[in-house]
Amino acid sequence: MEVTSQLKWNPILADPTGKRQLKPRTLGKTMVMDKGLGMLAFQDLLQTSSNHVDMIKLGFGTSPLYPQSVLQSKINLAKENNILIYPGGTFLEVAVTQNAVDSFFDMILALGFNGIEVSDGTIQMDRRQRNKLIARGIDEGLEVVTEYGKKGWGSSIELAELIDTVLIDTELGASLVTIEARESGIGVGIFDGEGKCKDEELHSVMTSISGNKLLWEAPLKTQQVHLINSLGPDIHLGNISPDEVIALEALRRGLRSDTLLSLGKK
Amino acid sequence: MEVTSQLKWNPILADPTGKRQLKPRTLGKTMVMDKGLGMLAFQDLLQTSSNHVDMIKLGFGTSPLYPQSVLQSKINLAKENNILIYPGGTFLEVAVTQNAVDSFFDMILALGFNGIEVSDGTIQMDRRQRNKLIARGIDEGLEVVTEYGKKGWGSSIELAELIDTVLIDTELGASLVTIEARESGIGVGIFDGEGKCKDEELHSVMTSISGNKLLWEAPLKTQQVHLINSLGPDIHLGNISPDEVIALEALRRGLRSDTLLSLGKK
Amino acid sequence: MEVTSQLKWNPILADPTGKRQLKPRTLGKTMVMDKGLGMLAFQDLLQTSSNHVDMIKLGFGTSPLYPQSVLQSKINLAKENNILIYPGGTFLEVAVTQNAVDSFFDMILALGFNGIEVSDGTIQMDRRQRNKLIARGIDEGLEVVTEYGKKGWGSSIELAELIDTVLIDTELGASLVTIEARESGIGVGIFDGEGKCKDEELHSVMTSISGNKLLWEAPLKTQQVHLINSLGPDIHLGNISPDEVIALEALRRGLRSDTLLSLGKK
Repeated sequence: MEVTSQLKWNPILADPTGKRQLKPRTLGKTMVMDKGLGMLAFQDLLQTSSNHVDMIKLGFGTSPLYPQSVLQSKINLAKENNILIYPGGTFLEVAVTQNAVDSFFDMILALGFNGIEVSDGTIQMDRRQRNKLIARGIDEGLEVVTEYGKKGWGSSIELAELIDTVLIDTELGASLVTIEARESGIGVGIFDGEGKCKDEELHSVMTSISGNKLLWEAPLKTQQVHLINSLGPDIHLGNISPDEVIALEALRRGLRSDTLLSLGKK
Repeated sequence: MEVTSQLKWNPILADPTGKRQLKPRTLGKTMVMDKGLGMLAFQDLLQTSSNHVDMIKLGFGTSPLYPQSVLQSKINLAKENNILIYPGGTFLEVAVTQNAVDSFFDMILALGFNGIEVSDGTIQMDRRQRNKLIARGIDEGLEVVTEYGKKGWGSSIELAELIDTVLIDTELGASLVTIEARESGIGVGIFDGEGKCKDEELHSVMTSISGNKLLWEAPLKTQQVHLINSLGPDIHLGNISPDEVIALEALRRGLRSDTLLSLGKK
Repeated sequence: MEVTSQLKWNPILADPTGKRQLKPRTLGKTMVMDKGLGMLAFQDLLQTSSNHVDMIKLGFGTSPLYPQSVLQSKINLAKENNILIYPGGTFLEVAVTQNAVDSFFDMILALGFNGIEVSDGTIQMDRRQRNKLIARGIDEGLEVVTEYGKKGWGSSIELAELIDTVLIDTELGASLVTIEARESGIGVGIFDGEGKCKDEELHSVMTSISGNKLLWEAPLKTQQVHLINSLGPDIHLGNISPDEVIALEALRRGLRSDTLLSLGKK
């Protein structure tokens, strides 16, 4: 054992691009969507992939469905691994709908979440209410990630609206604006009814907005490949399945067929 | 830790419907299809989701493919968590085909399974033989779940036949009649070749048969959403992937976009 | 416990075909594609399915993305279970592209992998270079599996080329030639753009080449069913998801609807 523990991969084999940032990184963040992992699976994820995971979202309203000790352990373990962990924005939308925003923040803070997501994917929310929620999160010492886009089938991106949203949200202190694609990646935002990317919309976004403010939800491998090959390996990608974290890291580094020739140093 | 262990979610955040039954429940049962989980994954499932799982089916003929100690541990752990655990009906069909029904029951009982499934999804079985198998299961002290429907591509529901089946099976002591949709949910029973629900068939079933006798196999999320939004969150749903148990519970409680507006208390 | 540990399944229930070889087997090998399992999940796989797994491929260039202790533990555990474990061929293609073949072999041997895959699915490689890599693997005491086929969309099988490849590769010492289908099984090799098998190509291959030299990548269940029902349960199958190992074993033994009537002894 001692022998091999001193051996190291030739760096060109571990990262043919020669450019992958280590954590904490400012480029190429990966956000994992956890929609119900058990505690052992969660430990497995972090033992294996802690270096490749920057953010974990506990999808939609799953947070209150765990035994509290499990939820608490997830939060603690994520933070020990320098990972931002936060409940899905839909859960805050539930709190808004049920007039329980105070309860929501009390519990989020007591549990030790270090972030929240502010979204209006399902409910109507005016700009003033959105501002208030972002400001409250910041005031409480949380990292605030916002989300742009509706979850309904066939939703799309209104460029002027997105530009405004990014400007205002980040000015209020949000660290990133997530571009909605749901867990499915089908028929929502920049993805059409077959999950293919609407490239004209994509490019009009990229020419107007600084890429490193945007977190692209891209649950399907074809979407990850397309976005990496279009925008480079340093884009932020989200709603990654826990099973796909290492495979995505391989894509980012040119260690998989889809990016080997385009990204590897020649 | 002590602090947060005393904190509780505001009930309106944990269940915006205000109506979800706790276990043991008579409405809204969830049946998980286990097609080969390892022992740690099985422990993970029950530690995380024991409150959300009512039944576990060890899919088709997987039972004899485990090391016996693993199988035994799964059965014990399920029963400790008040969960009905039983082998898939196809396995009993194998036993019928191979003239090994006595061996089947001997082993099921020795291992401590607390249920069986009686089906004829693949083989031909006349009403007399079905009656005998149901009666034998009941005599042995097992809970008997039956299944209606053929596994072949394009199979559909014959309403009169289903009504008869439910009547006779439950009179003989079966607790539930499962509506076949396989692991795939495509091209079988009430689901068409794209996995979409045939609503006319669905409604003719619901107007003729008491819903809480039926266990709908609905492996795909779109199917779960459609059935919950059509028939309510209290229907019994089955062939749920272990990975999707918490996500389904979120759907039942209005904690996910697809049911937030339709189910949450206003 | 003692009681049930002495009980055994009636053999006709555990294997209705009566023909399944035990490990180490020459027919019907199963190769699992591991694209990033955690260590607990890997232990789970082997505890539950060691008897059903002959080979494990650490997909494409994932090997250097693990913490080294995790990678080392995977390799050791696989070998203790008499399983061939090797990095995906794409990783060797990366090494070729980066002029780092020596580093590649040094590290593979130091870590204790017992096999390699030689492929040209992404890069161009002439016959001489392929020969050299196969010979080097054999010289180093590794089992060499080769791969035939391009990963690009719509790739297909050139029969004469495949026949030559199998002849030369095996004469040089390769144990098996893998037929490329990627992780997706869509639009590659013998599978069309919907993942359906091109039966004419399949049959022309089978009439020209000895089946037990070929390892068919068949990630989708429909593909596994089709190949087993066309070519028999004793074909070698690869790129099986860890979650599907037991389900595939059930298919091979006639313990699932799709093969119950075609394979079970009558």
